[in-house]
Amino acid sequence: MVGQTMDPLLRTVTINTGSQRYSVYIGERLLNEVGRICRESSLSGRAAIVSDANVAAHYGQTTATAFANAGFKISTHVVAAGERSKSFTDVTTLCEDFARQGVDRQSFVVALGGGVVGDLAGFAAAIYYRGIPVVQMPTTVMAQVDSSVGGKTGINLAAGKNLVGSFHQPAAVLADVSTLSTLGRREWNEGFAEVIKYGVICERELLPRLKRPLSPLGALIQRCVEIKASFVEDDEREKKGRRALLNFGHTIGHAIENVAGYGTLFHGEAVALGMIAAAHISARCAGLPAEDLQEIESAIKHFELPTKLPSELSRRRVLEAVFADKKFAEGRIRFVVTPKLGTAALVDNITIKDLEFGLEAIEPSVS
Amino acid sequence: MVGQTMDPLLRTVTINTGSQRYSVYIGERLLNEVGRICRESSLSGRAAIVSDANVAAHYGQTTATAFANAGFKISTHVVAAGERSKSFTDVTTLCEDFARQGVDRQSFVVALGGGVVGDLAGFAAAIYYRGIPVVQMPTTVMAQVDSSVGGKTGINLAAGKNLVGSFHQPAAVLADVSTLSTLGRREWNEGFAEVIKYGVICERELLPRLKRPLSPLGALIQRCVEIKASFVEDDEREKKGRRALLNFGHTIGHAIENVAGYGTLFHGEAVALGMIAAAHISARCAGLPAEDLQEIESAIKHFELPTKLPSELSRRRVLEAVFADKKFAEGRIRFVVTPKLGTAALVDNITIKDLEFGLEAIEPSVS
Repeated sequence: MVGQTMDPLLRTVTINTGSQRYSVYIGERLLNEVGRICRESSLSGRAAIVSDANVAAHYGQTTATAFANAGFKISTHVVAAGERSKSFTDVTTLCEDFARQGVDRQSFVVALGGGVVGDLAGFAAAIYYRGIPVVQMPTTVMAQVDSSVGGKTGINLAAGKNLVGSFHQPAAVLADVSTLSTLGRREWNEGFAEVIKYGVICERELLPRLKRPLSPLGALIQRCVEIKASFVEDDEREKKGRRALLNFGHTIGHAIENVAGYGTLFHGEAVALGMIAAAHISARCAGLPAEDLQEIESAIKHFELPTKLPSELSRRRVLEAVFADKKFAEGRIRFVVTPKLGTAALVDNITIKDLEFGLEAIEPSVS
Repeated sequence: MVGQTMDPLLRTVTINTGSQRYSVYIGERLLNEVGRICRESSLSGRAAIVSDANVAAHYGQTTATAFANAGFKISTHVVAAGERSKSFTDVTTLCEDFARQGVDRQSFVVALGGGVVGDLAGFAAAIYYRGIPVVQMPTTVMAQVDSSVGGKTGINLAAGKNLVGSFHQPAAVLADVSTLSTLGRREWNEGFAEVIKYGVICERELLPRLKRPLSPLGALIQRCVEIKASFVEDDEREKKGRRALLNFGHTIGHAIENVAGYGTLFHGEAVALGMIAAAHISARCAGLPAEDLQEIESAIKHFELPTKLPSELSRRRVLEAVFADKKFAEGRIRFVVTPKLGTAALVDNITIKDLEFGLEAIEPSVS
């Protein structure tokens, strides 16, 4: 972890989607407090703690102890690390394991880990007994600033990412900033793709801020959660188009992830590539100024995120994956552009030619 | 089909759960009208028609033609008939097939079949793209009077029935009474277990009515849907206890189904056994008069439903399955009793001894 100093504050962001209200707690050494906070959130019964093998090794025991100390029954459920665990096979195994270990209608699920664990365990909680509560405990930058908040859960199909899932808002989110200290450099960096995205679509000041010392990290995470919350509260189920703006960089990013094979590129790495392509498309179709485009690319490079497709990935296959995922109406798709750094718009006039133009920008130069 | 005469009326029941409002259409030869009715319900895009092999053979073509004639794109998806199809394996196959056949965010699912197809296709619709609309087209008595209405969808785990699922209200329900003419006698009869249940828990006049000619059948189905609707509207997610009254006979019924192996006994047959046991428990613990108990048993016999457990099923294993499914607090469980025919109550003081007493009543006599 780069340049972080101790920040003793417990920061709280409250999310109110209309259908549900919950708090996001952000702070140091929160794992130890999770049992107490869950009690205060009116949770009871058994805590079914789901994590992946890596996270369980680091934080499983601390978390289990915190729940036990607060008087909860617990069960633990460990999945393999990595995007491949976001599958029907893993949901099945998890639900059968819940049943075997006595997880019942009165229990709740605890998703301790990164985006994959949050999506998988959140989805299992959404469908087990037709829905039991889930507490999200994100342990990566990406999960803390983005995926743990907002209630989207899901798994992948062969045909595409997150094609199956539920909207299932958490009962609470606990982002323990201390857990980020065990992230590898690549995992740390990939999380900042989503932070850069927030800067691009609604708060351009974030981009210069990311080049200064990040400490206290809790403050940055809090700001990201507030931004995410504003989109989610306004449009919980992505019906009005506003929540869709959060998909900036994701249409092409998802296609890249799919073609590369899930887990080859990290989600944030694919999104970084998708954002560069989307920024070039924005310059061509929506008037994004050249200096704004450069600032986006510069932020991406600052976090050592990729700016060119891996050489084995053909542009044509990425384009085909976009076709498979998106609906073309008269040769045009809906697409999120940024007309000016700090703003975003959902337009429906992006053509195949425009997409090709964007993909050219991330084409590795032939040497 | 017994004693039915032609009933040209289109009957409609409107369901309003607060979160959603939809209509149940009941009538003859409705399959031909489904495209038009779906258009009028503001559905568009592709209709993904899910049915089982038996139902597809009888009604698949008619339904597909009706959608095509109304200008819908269609795709068809056939699962194996029977309770075993309510599995994660089948949901996975179905969702992958949706993706392959171009079912997208703008599409809707059509569940053409009995309770299994309704539960399975309804659940797939609930989670595909985090939820697309479903139109229920029930083709069995059981599905028309009960499972197609109210939004419960789900699949079975090894550990128990319907342990995984979603609440997903349909966009519309079309109960074509004509389709009941192809039911076998056993399937026909099993559907009346749920009708008898409505009589027991809230409308005792239903029981004598069932012994008179059933025609017009549409009127009886309409009354059942109205009863179901009153419970669902009051308590969509079974939070307040009122919807739980619909589980009369189901606690022991589900245990019997589980122990027998899914598909051995029909759902209605297991519920009939569960109702007899629950009626005896009601006589012991809630003052159900002997003549009311007899009237329940008589209605069950009238539809040739079982009154004794199959000889290979041990009472002990059924009891163990109840233990596995229900939470015992200080040796007592929550259980639906009928203190008087036409009424029901959720009580929490039923003991293991009481359950054993109920199970003795359905024990085959040793010969």
